Amino acid sequence: MANETKSANQPSLPEIFDKYKSIIDTSLRQQLNQNHLNAYQLLRYAMGWTDIDGKTVVATEGKALRPTLCLLACESTGGEVSDALPAAIALELIHAFSLIHDEVQDRDETRRHRPTIWTIWGESKAIVAGNILRIIADISLSKLINAKNTVETTLYVADIITKSYLQMIEGQYLDLKFEGRTDITINDYLSMISRKTGALIECSLTAGAIIGSANIDTIESFKACGKSLGMVFQIRDDYLGIWGDAKNTGKPVGADIRRKKNAFPFVYCISNANPKEKKILLEIYSKPVIENEDVFCAIEIMERVGTKEKSKQLADIHLSKAISSISNLDLVPEFHQSLVDIGTFLLIRER
Amino acid sequence: MANETKSANQPSLPEIFDKYKSIIDTSLRQQLNQNHLNAYQLLRYAMGWTDIDGKTVVATEGKALRPTLCLLACESTGGEVSDALPAAIALELIHAFSLIHDEVQDRDETRRHRPTIWTIWGESKAIVAGNILRIIADISLSKLINAKNTVETTLYVADIITKSYLQMIEGQYLDLKFEGRTDITINDYLSMISRKTGALIECSLTAGAIIGSANIDTIESFKACGKSLGMVFQIRDDYLGIWGDAKNTGKPVGADIRRKKNAFPFVYCISNANPKEKKILLEIYSKPVIENEDVFCAIEIMERVGTKEKSKQLADIHLSKAISSISNLDLVPEFHQSLVDIGTFLLIRER
Repeated sequence: MANETKSANQPSLPEIFDKYKSIIDTSLRQQLNQNHLNAYQLLRYAMGWTDIDGKTVVATEGKALRPTLCLLACESTGGEVSDALPAAIALELIHAFSLIHDEVQDRDETRRHRPTIWTIWGESKAIVAGNILRIIADISLSKLINAKNTVETTLYVADIITKSYLQMIEGQYLDLKFEGRTDITINDYLSMISRKTGALIECSLTAGAIIGSANIDTIESFKACGKSLGMVFQIRDDYLGIWGDAKNTGKPVGADIRRKKNAFPFVYCISNANPKEKKILLEIYSKPVIENEDVFCAIEIMERVGTKEKSKQLADIHLSKAISSISNLDLVPEFHQSLVDIGTFLLIRER
Repeated sequence: MANETKSANQPSLPEIFDKYKSIIDTSLRQQLNQNHLNAYQLLRYAMGWTDIDGKTVVATEGKALRPTLCLLACESTGGEVSDALPAAIALELIHAFSLIHDEVQDRDETRRHRPTIWTIWGESKAIVAGNILRIIADISLSKLINAKNTVETTLYVADIITKSYLQMIEGQYLDLKFEGRTDITINDYLSMISRKTGALIECSLTAGAIIGSANIDTIESFKACGKSLGMVFQIRDDYLGIWGDAKNTGKPVGADIRRKKNAFPFVYCISNANPKEKKILLEIYSKPVIENEDVFCAIEIMERVGTKEKSKQLADIHLSKAISSISNLDLVPEFHQSLVDIGTFLLIRER
């Protein structure tokens, strides 16, 4: 969050995150604090509010990117924050749910420097806890009708969130299907991430705009902006998976190489390396366990092929697209600036 | 299904299942046949329509109990089948989703004599496939508004299905929490199954009645009937887990003993056995692997304690409750009889 300790080379979250932090946090806690069923203890842990024993800790929650985008889009288009809040909370819960299931699937043992749910409570309970979070998202969404939204808006928003969520899961499936393969093209890859990560980010801006405005052009502009921001987000994520600082990301250098992930740097590099480099890279990716020296060798090849610059360049292009998508709108300068700030942050974030 | 080959001691499905079979089947296939993404191949396999390679086979689908109950409740209360269809399909998809995740959690290797999804495609893809099915349920539910339902009915039905589904998952969590324990009381157990299995069956009749009728008393009667039918279903399920015929259930004799499940027979027996019998039973349940002779010994104790009769008796009581719940309603005799038939079938089913 904006008030997190930041290291010297770590950019602050834009101010707009601070503006909505408290309302998002209060509402999230309302959803998850009331129930005394033991399963909810796992959920509060997953949200970063409690420790393994259920004791309250200094919160280590995420950035709340999706709800922030949703509330900002709503306010930017003339709506009130409270009208979009149930959708914003649903988006954050869907995101949190997907992290819990992803961790099981990827066998991730830590997230934000803490042990993951499945490593503590076992895989079965982690799956179920994720499913509970997912339903609480639905319940939050159903409260849209209690805000000042019309029935049409409520159903429309529920519909696009459901469909985006389906895209996200389909993207996760594609990602699993790509695992272990070395013939994924850049287009395959971009199509996969636009679903897996892009859909929910795109949907966050779209849902907010639908709640704030009845104007189809406005909604479409926000949708396009969200689509591009999703790409910026994921390309940077993949960049950090190779070149991220372990102190910030909580993952070792070259983490995505060790996990043989079909992330952008690998996919780009394998398509652009010369035959000799390609052969070395494929040999590394075919090893059962990838050692430190392999990681450094792979990074060296990636850098020689220009992967690092290409990642930055591609993210830059998508940020420009995102900004130009909303340039035709007559937004209050403050809101316009906040959207630009978020995009810029996504481009340079260190975690 | 009603036209399945039935063995000598296996009761036929009541005729009402045949009445709705085709409309349910057609609608389910519409949801899952259009998409060519590889993940949907897993889903069609899970529904029993295709083999591992995606080739069409003689379908081995389930009974479609939940959608049948939903459509019957709708028709019984004056509604049209087509109005309740999106909800009925959603209920079946939620049920199918929960089976896929349950199989992962319980490490079940077969269902209806076929290998389970996770054993073929791996655990991660099984989790994701389940999640996709779950969203398709949501999408089906959103089509209620396209039928002749009012907005109020649509939102009301979506709300109770979501909440029942939450209860189901909470019940699954409790079930996991009970695993390995030997101090579960009969009340703990009944409270758990009323969520895990009961909630969705109760909801099937309730949702159908809401769509068919605006009368609160009618809806409440169907809800009470569904609650009791859920108990009949699960108590019989637990009975079959011990005394079921492997030819019908596809599971070995005493399957639930081998898995140390806290099902009704064990919970009842441990609460009612004498100290010597209890000691033997606890010793068996504390073994890492339960051998055939242990299984037969446990069954003998269960029978001596009167567990078999108690199971039947308890299921009988709940069936009577189910029937009496709807006795105050002025139902068309044919529909009333169908509900009684379903209840009776659940009491004596062999799989």
